[in-house]
Amino acid sequence: MTFETLSQQRCHGGVQSFHRHDSAQTGTPMRFAVFTPSGEGPHPVVWFLAGLTCTEENFTVKAGAQAIAAALGLMLIAPDTSPRGEGVADDGAYDMGQGAGFYLDATQAPWAPHFRMRSYIESELPALIAGQFPADMTRQGIMGHSMGGHGALTIALRNPGRFAAVSAFAPIASPINCPWGVKALTGYLGEDRAAWRAYDACALLDDGARVADILVDQGEADPFLTDQLKPELLEAACARAGVALELRRQIGYDHSYWFIQSFIADHLRWHAQRLAR
Amino acid sequence: MTFETLSQQRCHGGVQSFHRHDSAQTGTPMRFAVFTPSGEGPHPVVWFLAGLTCTEENFTVKAGAQAIAAALGLMLIAPDTSPRGEGVADDGAYDMGQGAGFYLDATQAPWAPHFRMRSYIESELPALIAGQFPADMTRQGIMGHSMGGHGALTIALRNPGRFAAVSAFAPIASPINCPWGVKALTGYLGEDRAAWRAYDACALLDDGARVADILVDQGEADPFLTDQLKPELLEAACARAGVALELRRQIGYDHSYWFIQSFIADHLRWHAQRLAR
Repeated sequence: MTFETLSQQRCHGGVQSFHRHDSAQTGTPMRFAVFTPSGEGPHPVVWFLAGLTCTEENFTVKAGAQAIAAALGLMLIAPDTSPRGEGVADDGAYDMGQGAGFYLDATQAPWAPHFRMRSYIESELPALIAGQFPADMTRQGIMGHSMGGHGALTIALRNPGRFAAVSAFAPIASPINCPWGVKALTGYLGEDRAAWRAYDACALLDDGARVADILVDQGEADPFLTDQLKPELLEAACARAGVALELRRQIGYDHSYWFIQSFIADHLRWHAQRLAR
Repeated sequence: MTFETLSQQRCHGGVQSFHRHDSAQTGTPMRFAVFTPSGEGPHPVVWFLAGLTCTEENFTVKAGAQAIAAALGLMLIAPDTSPRGEGVADDGAYDMGQGAGFYLDATQAPWAPHFRMRSYIESELPALIAGQFPADMTRQGIMGHSMGGHGALTIALRNPGRFAAVSAFAPIASPINCPWGVKALTGYLGEDRAAWRAYDACALLDDGARVADILVDQGEADPFLTDQLKPELLEAACARAGVALELRRQIGYDHSYWFIQSFIADHLRWHAQRLAR
């Protein structure tokens, strides 16, 4: 397996680095970014899964997370959101194909061979991180934004005990019940809705999956709030499941990284508290 | 005069906005970004002048400054670094022409008609800010990076009493004495070196200009340190002038916004202290 460090720069006493490797899961080169705080480690790890159209750069450059991660001693991992390249299937729209992997393993043509972001994020990339970085894989948290909020919630719910903390910014609460999700799940997984339930936080909760608690921030001026994100569905599912959800509706905030950067400190502190020894 | 708000988004309890207006000085549309903290104001103002190749976006997106500015109640203004567009002269290289205005008023063809960034930053934009934003123009600070560090230092030195605080990240300490500066000053101002002195912080100090004190951070792993930036020249000029310079040489840091974001909190606190009533 190839593993390349593309850049490595001093930041807040630690190192911000960008990497590329050949992924066995996606069959393509994949990129990711890592912030390593100062000190020898091993450091607790927080994953950030980005939303539609994003790469490993959006969160890393725009969220202002490193200052707080450095102060809290957290390592940050920001993967890309899909396989990419000329041989990889794509869709004309921004909500399917490259930049829109939806953190699932596709079963349908033409997506199936490369679109394996679930296995990539759940298995392949953690093994690489554990081998190449001073990461304490016994202390992991996961968070994400929009499509990546869906990814963080579903990956945490499907892997009980792995993540001590889970949070999201404006997550797609229930892909089964919104246009982005129905399009993606139909395309990647086919018409059989039973197969969709592993990729829907609300369905996973209804089917018995549990996490200790969840923090969600949602902007009230988010243009996707009503039709796509539907935090009220997560609220209801958590209530049915008895999972403690802290859902904060933030007046005036939209769907952008200006919103994420405004509350990233709260999220990282939430994770640090739950990752403390 | 036209004045347009291109976007306006909630951020850290305040508003991050981007604007465009027709500049009388440059004869072109110019863009700038403003962070307005929460509260009615008027708010003290900190200017950030960016470096070669940058626009109003680099600092605004990459420096993580809004979190601290919000906490300190500071308004941030980030202008573009030059006039731009099809009718504006350019140079094939990154260090001259569009994206490289050097914060001076050009006297030579083909630059003279549009490249008037000194008058734009010193006169036109402050008047626009005072008229359109809840800015307390009696409390201003100025900072910048690289070419913009040169801009911040020289603008503060030429306008005694206007800025209560001045600081820089990796500034070009003496354009007269480095390749970037000699190329730009020759091109924009011609061969007469007497005309260059108004655009050189060290020469201005030697010629009697004064500020109360200066904070400078300089990365020791900055690839431009030895040939272009030369902080030792500013150190010597401040010593000759009796100006208190706090020059911090930061081990391992380069010339990037990873470096700037690592120390922006210190700079904004330095400004806030000096801008306090």
